[in-house]
Amino acid sequence: MDAPPTHDPIAELITNYNELNSSFIEELHEEPSALEFMRFVARNTPFVVRGGAANWQATREWSVDYLRNFLGDQPVNVAVTPAGNADAPTLYNPPSQPPTLVLAKPHEHPLPFTALLTHLTSPNPSNSEVHYAQTQNDNLRHEYAPLFTHHSHNLPTSIPWARLALARDPDAINLWIGNSRSTTALHKDGYENVYVQVAGRKHFILLPPVCHACVNERMLPGARYVRRKRGGDGTAEGEEGGLELVLDGEGGGDGEGGAVPFPIWDPDKPEENATEYSALARPMRVTLEPGDMLYLPCLWYHKVSQSCSPEEVCIAINYWYDMDYTGPLYPLSTFVRSVSNKNK
Amino acid sequence: MDAPPTHDPIAELITNYNELNSSFIEELHEEPSALEFMRFVARNTPFVVRGGAANWQATREWSVDYLRNFLGDQPVNVAVTPAGNADAPTLYNPPSQPPTLVLAKPHEHPLPFTALLTHLTSPNPSNSEVHYAQTQNDNLRHEYAPLFTHHSHNLPTSIPWARLALARDPDAINLWIGNSRSTTALHKDGYENVYVQVAGRKHFILLPPVCHACVNERMLPGARYVRRKRGGDGTAEGEEGGLELVLDGEGGGDGEGGAVPFPIWDPDKPEENATEYSALARPMRVTLEPGDMLYLPCLWYHKVSQSCSPEEVCIAINYWYDMDYTGPLYPLSTFVRSVSNKNK
Ligand SMILES: O=C(O)CCC(=O)C(=O)O
Ligand SMILES: O=C(O)CCC(=O)C(=O)O
Repeated sequence: MDAPPTHDPIAELITNYNELNSSFIEELHEEPSALEFMRFVARNTPFVVRGGAANWQATREWSVDYLRNFLGDQPVNVAVTPAGNADAPTLYNPPSQPPTLVLAKPHEHPLPFTALLTHLTSPNPSNSEVHYAQTQNDNLRHEYAPLFTHHSHNLPTSIPWARLALARDPDAINLWIGNSRSTTALHKDGYENVYVQVAGRKHFILLPPVCHACVNERMLPGARYVRRKRGGDGTAEGEEGGLELVLDGEGGGDGEGGAVPFPIWDPDKPEENATEYSALARPMRVTLEPGDMLYLPCLWYHKVSQSCSPEEVCIAINYWYDMDYTGPLYPLSTFVRSVSNKNK
Repeated sequence: MDAPPTHDPIAELITNYNELNSSFIEELHEEPSALEFMRFVARNTPFVVRGGAANWQATREWSVDYLRNFLGDQPVNVAVTPAGNADAPTLYNPPSQPPTLVLAKPHEHPLPFTALLTHLTSPNPSNSEVHYAQTQNDNLRHEYAPLFTHHSHNLPTSIPWARLALARDPDAINLWIGNSRSTTALHKDGYENVYVQVAGRKHFILLPPVCHACVNERMLPGARYVRRKRGGDGTAEGEEGGLELVLDGEGGGDGEGGAVPFPIWDPDKPEENATEYSALARPMRVTLEPGDMLYLPCLWYHKVSQSCSPEEVCIAINYWYDMDYTGPLYPLSTFVRSVSNKNK
């Protein structure tokens, strides 16, 4: 990890950006108007609305008991991982081969909703598997439709100021239910994201699109956790075994094949996997309390961890609006990536 | 002029942008709301409002006669050039030295307003000097204050939707009075520009900030047209002579010194002074008729020519709002420039 050369356009880009922009998030105390929101969209700059969703029925009433009574044993898709690392760069360590970094997708498993809640709130040993309901496929309007459509909840079908400003409906509304053991690795999305914290706390680390060269994007082969079918790890024949990483396209993998570009730098371990530019990054940190709303602009890198008391769960709902690919931001972000990759 | 290499990030940037954005300007037929305007600002994308200022007293009533009666012999600053090339890359051809390209500033000369009008509307031979009132220093609220403040004009002190959206007042309101012989060379400004055509027509050629590598920016020494004081060109002693270019810092120059970066490519002569990227540019062209308003986003390159009948003048008023330097656009535009210059 050498210092970047002077007059290096990439270093200059990051430092110019840092000089002109705060690394502290703007805090609003009421929801913005559509026009105020559009000013943030134009600047591609995050903000948090403290208490912006404090009067939602969900933030006031949803709890483990409430949800258990409401959804009962309805089956839900659960992401299961050994260490809370769904969609995360993970060391793949096959016998008699050198270890390689892969993008580990979770084992996806249907569970009765009550079983998920029981798992999330049980005193699990730290080496036990981690569960996270995080399907990110508009699950609130599909898997969790009863929760969404019930008249007592009045969950908005869109965030009014975002709908007016962006002149579109959300592409997806996602429900996230987990506990302190799950972390979402640093990544970015092509969405304008309004993220609403319902229960527990979420800790976001944010980096703007200009920081591409800091995050050490690599082409990672895809892999998925698969349940060992029989007693290979000491379990008896027929019993379920532990989780095992299987490369995409190999036996048991989901065959999607191909590597995907993914950041391998973790702002919480800034010395590991750093590039010559990582030290220039000024990560923006924000913790959402129940009732807070975050505007997470498109193409921003974000790492998300969570905390809640052991007998509770962390719940969030987020609204994803397709980003606008017209204008200069998208081609310029791609340009930063091409220039950074060319210099590698 | 070679073709750009394949997988060249700069070529890819321009073609990506072209694929995602139209090279035809969006035409509105009524003024946008502040929110609609902000969507264009967010996309850094121009639009024209046909007839948006058609009911301004200025577009309805200002004519050569009206202005002559109104301003009379009040002195105004006039930009005088040999060929309509105020602030334009111009060949400087000193005796016994190789010719070099410089940025030629006009000879600035106070004239009674009636004399300006007479000059602009006289049948001048094509080799005579060109006059343009274009001081660009908030002249409408200073030099032309009587025109601005007179109750019968009701000239807006700001464009309502721009003021609401940008939450600021204009930094400058400029009046431009010229004729078909003046052209403003391709350049860019750090302003959000609302440009209102009052009389005659203006022809804009627009290029987005991603096209930096197309415009062949060079460091041009500054120079200014100076009036030869005595009969060096055959005029009698004491009589005024022709215009002569003098480098900044030299005798008679204004001593600002230093070279400035300036595009030398002209989209109307695409083969001359081209870079390997110029052919990738898709210039957006728009002609403003009296009463039309143009939103010209910050950092867009623009070349402006004009046309009006010989007995009339071209009049425009534009509102310059400081651009927002926060967010990614400004640092990314600088980055494009650094990468392009590095490759030279
Ligand atoms: O809440 C999380 O764990 C991740 C959220 C996220 O990545 C998103 O909303 O895009
Ligand atoms: O009208 C002209 O000649 C030039 C206008 C211009 O460059 C501007 O408004 O920034």
